[in-house]
Amino acid sequence: MAAAVLSPATTLRLNPFYATVRFISLRRKTLPTTLLPSLLKPIIPTPQNYTHYPSFSGGRKFSSVISAKISPENAVERQKDEVLGSDKKVGKFRKRLRVVDIKGGVDEGLDRLGENLVVKGWIRTLRVQSSVTFIEVNDGSCLSNMQCVVGSDAEGYDQVENGLTTTGASVCVEGILVASQGSKQKVELKVEKLTTVGKSDPSFPIQKKRVSREFLRTKSHLRPRTNTFGAVARVRNALAYATHKFFNENGFVWISSPIITASDCEGAGEQFCVTTLIPSSREANESLADAIPKTKDGLIDWSQDFFGKPAFLTVSGQLNAETYATALSDVYTFGPTFRAENSNTSRHLAEFWMIEPELAFANLDDDMACATAYLQYVVKYVLENCKEDMDFFNTWIEKGIVNRLSDVVEKDFVQLTYTDAVELLLRAKKKFEFPVKWGCDLQSEHERYITEEAFDGCPVIIRDYPKEIKAFYMRQNDDGKTVAAMDLLVPRVGELIGGSQREERLDLLEDRLDELQLNKESYWWYLDLRRYGSVPHAGFGLGFERLVQFATGIENIRDAIPFPRTPGSAEF
Amino acid sequence: MAAAVLSPATTLRLNPFYATVRFISLRRKTLPTTLLPSLLKPIIPTPQNYTHYPSFSGGRKFSSVISAKISPENAVERQKDEVLGSDKKVGKFRKRLRVVDIKGGVDEGLDRLGENLVVKGWIRTLRVQSSVTFIEVNDGSCLSNMQCVVGSDAEGYDQVENGLTTTGASVCVEGILVASQGSKQKVELKVEKLTTVGKSDPSFPIQKKRVSREFLRTKSHLRPRTNTFGAVARVRNALAYATHKFFNENGFVWISSPIITASDCEGAGEQFCVTTLIPSSREANESLADAIPKTKDGLIDWSQDFFGKPAFLTVSGQLNAETYATALSDVYTFGPTFRAENSNTSRHLAEFWMIEPELAFANLDDDMACATAYLQYVVKYVLENCKEDMDFFNTWIEKGIVNRLSDVVEKDFVQLTYTDAVELLLRAKKKFEFPVKWGCDLQSEHERYITEEAFDGCPVIIRDYPKEIKAFYMRQNDDGKTVAAMDLLVPRVGELIGGSQREERLDLLEDRLDELQLNKESYWWYLDLRRYGSVPHAGFGLGFERLVQFATGIENIRDAIPFPRTPGSAEF
Repeated sequence: MAAAVLSPATTLRLNPFYATVRFISLRRKTLPTTLLPSLLKPIIPTPQNYTHYPSFSGGRKFSSVISAKISPENAVERQKDEVLGSDKKVGKFRKRLRVVDIKGGVDEGLDRLGENLVVKGWIRTLRVQSSVTFIEVNDGSCLSNMQCVVGSDAEGYDQVENGLTTTGASVCVEGILVASQGSKQKVELKVEKLTTVGKSDPSFPIQKKRVSREFLRTKSHLRPRTNTFGAVARVRNALAYATHKFFNENGFVWISSPIITASDCEGAGEQFCVTTLIPSSREANESLADAIPKTKDGLIDWSQDFFGKPAFLTVSGQLNAETYATALSDVYTFGPTFRAENSNTSRHLAEFWMIEPELAFANLDDDMACATAYLQYVVKYVLENCKEDMDFFNTWIEKGIVNRLSDVVEKDFVQLTYTDAVELLLRAKKKFEFPVKWGCDLQSEHERYITEEAFDGCPVIIRDYPKEIKAFYMRQNDDGKTVAAMDLLVPRVGELIGGSQREERLDLLEDRLDELQLNKESYWWYLDLRRYGSVPHAGFGLGFERLVQFATGIENIRDAIPFPRTPGSAEF
Repeated sequence: MAAAVLSPATTLRLNPFYATVRFISLRRKTLPTTLLPSLLKPIIPTPQNYTHYPSFSGGRKFSSVISAKISPENAVERQKDEVLGSDKKVGKFRKRLRVVDIKGGVDEGLDRLGENLVVKGWIRTLRVQSSVTFIEVNDGSCLSNMQCVVGSDAEGYDQVENGLTTTGASVCVEGILVASQGSKQKVELKVEKLTTVGKSDPSFPIQKKRVSREFLRTKSHLRPRTNTFGAVARVRNALAYATHKFFNENGFVWISSPIITASDCEGAGEQFCVTTLIPSSREANESLADAIPKTKDGLIDWSQDFFGKPAFLTVSGQLNAETYATALSDVYTFGPTFRAENSNTSRHLAEFWMIEPELAFANLDDDMACATAYLQYVVKYVLENCKEDMDFFNTWIEKGIVNRLSDVVEKDFVQLTYTDAVELLLRAKKKFEFPVKWGCDLQSEHERYITEEAFDGCPVIIRDYPKEIKAFYMRQNDDGKTVAAMDLLVPRVGELIGGSQREERLDLLEDRLDELQLNKESYWWYLDLRRYGSVPHAGFGLGFERLVQFATGIENIRDAIPFPRTPGSAEF
């Protein structure tokens, strides 16, 4: 990524191309329309007139597109080749210069001293001193601002005097890169020309003074303009990209499991109903309850709904992923999942993203190995690719997080059975709120004790849980009491990953469905996977926002996703 | 990817590790629990007993995990180092050998002649000849099967005789790789040992005879076991991965736009309502319509719903993406979107995935350049990374598709204005069903004529549409009649991409909302982006399943997504 973001530095030096249009006469009846493309040569289309954004013409260039101006009054006329120039016929997408392109290299910009550069972004702070004004411009490409030094001789200085260049305003700044006198950065921009692109109303809610994260949640549309949320967004992106990279490098195929499902399969967790029986948004507020179609028995008439039956938002893509794993071997999902649980905690969202790999011809050991390798890979990726943001979290959000994450990458994970974990807890010199007893699920306090205290911050995998506290599809161990399930616990976040080997034996799976009084008919397709070439397979689920919390130290899960959905809150 | 999938060839040669457990006594009161990790050394945990999958122990190895066996009766005892062996302490995730690892290289397996290999997969076909039996085994890692030749001397040959090894059964095959006598493949496996992992019931619906795609839609859980759907899944994955790669290489940040939204913003398109006022799945079928909470006026009492107001499934993440673009500069979404439209066509889904990049400090030209570069990048990626699958589509699904896609990568796109496009259509020697008139939206037949006939299969970008037929947020051109919108059309699929520069001028945007009688209050946060540091910005949306159609030649969009959702259908 570093190489890619640093490449387009010279873009700004190119002169804007001017309008060059071709004329094709449709009156020339001898010209078959199918020949049109061969007559066209690539030309650069008219740049739009950006009079109020003067530097704009120096930005991205449009290329590899043909402009065909059709005019019946003119004959076909070929564009002169010298206008085009072969070097301008690039099939490449060019970017504007960003702050990370300047400061993101090892030299932090010193390699570009003396260059004339244009930076576009938003003003974070403004310090007016007697002789010069310092404007900190951020464009979100990295945490760092570009410090811009504006003297009274700079073109556009009047905008500083007139109070246009306030916090939140967008600007275009052109100047020479010079060594900085300050200790906070190596380079700064000596401004030759300043242009306010869009001013900021004085009501701009994110002023220099610190604002609480609770407050910022009411401004989800503006909070990415803060250091914290900009860094969270970049690290979140890096984690997502590393996820796709890890699985693709290991031969996994990404599967989009369905979001809406009429399949009555999960049974676990409260689900959101998806329906068109209630009118669409504009009218919903005034909809009469009686307008909902009824059968003659007074039941909701689902036959009139969009899917002809009740449909819900998915709580997991696992069962669907299994269908693809038992065909393509290794697959993963990465998509949104939903819980309609009324949990107002810092660990729960009604809408969250899940990563669910599924491996065919795999057992629980393979599953744990995959989870371990995955977690180490994505954490390593973030440490290597988001250094600046991680330093920020290390300083301001969770002291020591970089070292703790480095340990995750380098050290081995602890693994123990549920039975051993219970024993460990029973012997702990600690009072727990919830009782510890074989057969009960481990509570958050237990999980935290194990990973934070007993194993000193090391990730811990607990395996072989009692079958009663785990889902129906988990594979029975030979002891008849436990299933081949595993949870990966990390400090502070608790359960980050939950997985299992799946029950691939048709008879045992059917017995389990019966035991739990689940309706076998509705699982017909899931059971088919065991009827036709069943294989041992395993997988796990990881809540992506918990991973973001783990990697950034962000305490509240509502700050780990751009637009959090929780009980009573679905704004923006 | 090719390098990664070819690496783990030696895995199969490793001997399985046997149970090695550590004992830590918790009775040694002098041992602080926090010291536990330092006493533990990584060991390989007990491989589970796979008596009925005999070759399983030779598969993936579990590593980088510590097994802590806690037993109060035993003292701490360190595991002997020679059992561990430093080379076995790998922090790497190992894969089983897959068919692509054998046949996916340039030599198509000839480089591995004489090796003893184990292949695990599903039987596609079985041909019994007088002296030998040919079993085609597929594991989904590539289109190719591994041809396995079983002689009567092979261990497990009785399974062939007993009819266990039927189509659909899963098997584990061990043998020596030899040069193939057949012309269809360069190598085949001379089987020494055959093991049926899971047999296939004779009712297996995907037998050798061709089955229709309509039929296969009723078997969405099994259709990835066919050549076509396996190939679609792999190409779909490649397109998704190339999408993330393209945007990350160009400095874009992936944003998860919300799926559930109570924001009354789009106004366009029918939406699905998301609610908990209707009981969850198990009870939904029998829910009384009267059980839905009402106000005293008989209206639905939304205050009792999960979000305290009506909430819907998103139709687009664009407005949300704009909030992040005006903070981080370049962002993209890639997530599911929904339309509750009763369209039973081969081009529409109720649930589909969208890619929506948004670029700050960008105009329509930048937007078109980005769309062009993106499309060329992902198509090129698929041509380079999915050669075998693309050859399959080229032969069986859409003849000539590889050449047509190569043209997309290499040739320039045609660009013309909406006004010119209308003129082109008016002059076309073709009868259209829908009238052509400036101010009317282009119909599918018009779009297809332009890209398929007028420009001979070349992708065409049409820009500057009349403002009346485009969304409120598109930027007005100086002519007062058109907006800076663009559609990218491709042959066969029609509109693949739709984008625009966004109206960044607060007054013009508010005027437009008024003109369209949209409620300004509900757009408060969207308008805020124009109040605080507004910048010219642009973006586009691409329906991912249409891209899959375009790249594979698959005719019906229901075959371009694993589990299609359409009116009346949300199975699986």
